[in-house]
Amino acid sequence: MDPVPLLQALIRCRSVTPADDGALAVLEAALVPLGFTCTRLRFGEVQNLFARRGSLPPHLCFAGHTDVVPPGDPADWMVDPFSAEIRDGSVMGRGATDMKGGIAAWIAAIAGLPRDLPGSLSLLITGDEEGPAQDGTIRVLHWMEQNGHRPDMCVVGEPTSRAVLGDTIKIGRRGSLNAVIRVHGTQGHSAYPQRADNPVHRLVRVLARLTEQPLDTGSRWFEPSTLQVTSFDVGNPATNVIPASAEARLNIRFNDLHSSASLDARLRQALEAEEARFDLETRCSGESFLTTPGPFVDALVQATLDATGVKPALDTGGGTSDARFITRICPVAELGAVGASMHKVNEATPVAELRQLAALYARVIGALLPGEPVS
Amino acid sequence: MDPVPLLQALIRCRSVTPADDGALAVLEAALVPLGFTCTRLRFGEVQNLFARRGSLPPHLCFAGHTDVVPPGDPADWMVDPFSAEIRDGSVMGRGATDMKGGIAAWIAAIAGLPRDLPGSLSLLITGDEEGPAQDGTIRVLHWMEQNGHRPDMCVVGEPTSRAVLGDTIKIGRRGSLNAVIRVHGTQGHSAYPQRADNPVHRLVRVLARLTEQPLDTGSRWFEPSTLQVTSFDVGNPATNVIPASAEARLNIRFNDLHSSASLDARLRQALEAEEARFDLETRCSGESFLTTPGPFVDALVQATLDATGVKPALDTGGGTSDARFITRICPVAELGAVGASMHKVNEATPVAELRQLAALYARVIGALLPGEPVS
Ligand SMILES: [Zn+2]
Ligand SMILES: [Zn+2]
Repeated sequence: MDPVPLLQALIRCRSVTPADDGALAVLEAALVPLGFTCTRLRFGEVQNLFARRGSLPPHLCFAGHTDVVPPGDPADWMVDPFSAEIRDGSVMGRGATDMKGGIAAWIAAIAGLPRDLPGSLSLLITGDEEGPAQDGTIRVLHWMEQNGHRPDMCVVGEPTSRAVLGDTIKIGRRGSLNAVIRVHGTQGHSAYPQRADNPVHRLVRVLARLTEQPLDTGSRWFEPSTLQVTSFDVGNPATNVIPASAEARLNIRFNDLHSSASLDARLRQALEAEEARFDLETRCSGESFLTTPGPFVDALVQATLDATGVKPALDTGGGTSDARFITRICPVAELGAVGASMHKVNEATPVAELRQLAALYARVIGALLPGEPVS
Repeated sequence: MDPVPLLQALIRCRSVTPADDGALAVLEAALVPLGFTCTRLRFGEVQNLFARRGSLPPHLCFAGHTDVVPPGDPADWMVDPFSAEIRDGSVMGRGATDMKGGIAAWIAAIAGLPRDLPGSLSLLITGDEEGPAQDGTIRVLHWMEQNGHRPDMCVVGEPTSRAVLGDTIKIGRRGSLNAVIRVHGTQGHSAYPQRADNPVHRLVRVLARLTEQPLDTGSRWFEPSTLQVTSFDVGNPATNVIPASAEARLNIRFNDLHSSASLDARLRQALEAEEARFDLETRCSGESFLTTPGPFVDALVQATLDATGVKPALDTGGGTSDARFITRICPVAELGAVGASMHKVNEATPVAELRQLAALYARVIGALLPGEPVS
């Protein structure tokens, strides 16, 4: 089975989050003939799909999303971003790499494999990955657990490759925490600071200490964590007045040496060391996670090497993905197309690379569901 | 001569800066009969008065202002703020202490002294002390120098006393400098700080260092200088963006160990040590100054002790006054009424205190122009 027509059919659905525009129907039409049972899961305005073939362990899940980011001004594109035209040997259109291409390649891989693989296969496809991600993967996983579909391992088809197909597998992601710190002081005249308590000075000291040393020097699989003060605001127009309070905003990208709770405690400690009166609000958009290399990751690496001749690097960089939800359920890794054009104009996947990705995924499935076929 | 009716006549002029409303005419009417030659000096919309009697050295100048701050809502007052009614033994009204009372007392003192004092006397009265102070004392001093009226010493009649009349003589004032620092960095994504240059971190480090140690521990006659960060502003709403620049505002109150130039250099140095790209703007609203204690100050102290029984403290605290301009010409000190009610509602001077101030000023004139009367 050629993944190209399937990718083209998917791109032609204008599924900008949270719209579906028929994308899941295209998948169902491809999966049902392959023996999958499809369940549509609508949460809020988001359409999701769970499809499974077989019920035996091991249960290998493929996770992906049919929603795409907006194309911007179509006039900036070489082709209509939803036309899926082939230009210079590439399928061009929004979602070509992120990540309708990955889904098409996975389904093509299944189509090319025998039906009687050991274990069982499923697909978790959401329409809310590029959006708030609240009515997507996280809720489908909940439904899966409640309905006896807990997977044993999961491959996410995000475009992880950098320069050539297969050069990078993501086995984790840093977490991200936003904090708002407000320090309260005592207002007063700037000529008589002894009668006031300058909250700017306290906050400056706290932030100087917090940014003085890196949070860590990195770990076995992670880059060092980073802490950035993104804003500091007082808004005091009076040059002779010490203000009553001062506010700062921080963004922390953290590796597996920290958690949102440990970072909240660290900020709180720094403020308490300053004896500041403060309000601290932290919001975590994703904990860091790591799928520790072992048999699952080893199998992915070997399959990639076999299929592409490239030895993949194990990486944990970049922003967040839905893998952050799946990691709570089972080992998860991300492996997919070259992502260079994702979220840009003229997003495109070379036809040859898409077919190579299908072959790579076939190797992956074969490696993760090894042994005797189910008779 | 009783200073009370003269003070009442002055208060009844609604001379809120820059209005004169007849205040200087009241003074001329009192001074001409005492032998003074009066010169009105109008600069911009401000009326000023220079009056002198005699031409011999030593030339003792009295400096003061007839302009007053606005009374606020007259309904908040016990009496009409420009009625100069006597309540509970006090003359009440805007300017009673700051500083129409001081002017009335000085003139009453002169009236009670012989005409043939040695040396000569002058009065420098401005209508622009509570305002921008650009068309007042500073321009009158310039005119005086150009017209052969450079004084040898000067008493400013500001209300310097704290609890009882004569308890405080001001022999200097701290300077005040405002600074705006803008640090420029390189904008970027907060997840990849290595590709950006966070100006908030740089500015936080600079300010932490600047506020870590006091500027000094005070000097012989001055309290320690103070440096206060009054605002810090970035205004970045995006939690995942490192901003391009950050701004802070500082107010520095400095003693005689510093000048606006030395402080500007100090700030510049701190920014250069951080290797920051920055803009620095400093504005000095008054250098610090000190009239070093010596015969002039000693005479003031002795006269005050003789007249009131109180030994005055020599002080350099508080905000700025026009003495900051006079110090460039001759030794200057400030001595006057109890200032507790200045700039407030129900500003008032006890009749008894006003008469005591006239007696004190008579002693001061006698002490500063000692020796044989001019025959
Ligand atoms: Zn994606
Ligand atoms: Zn005054």
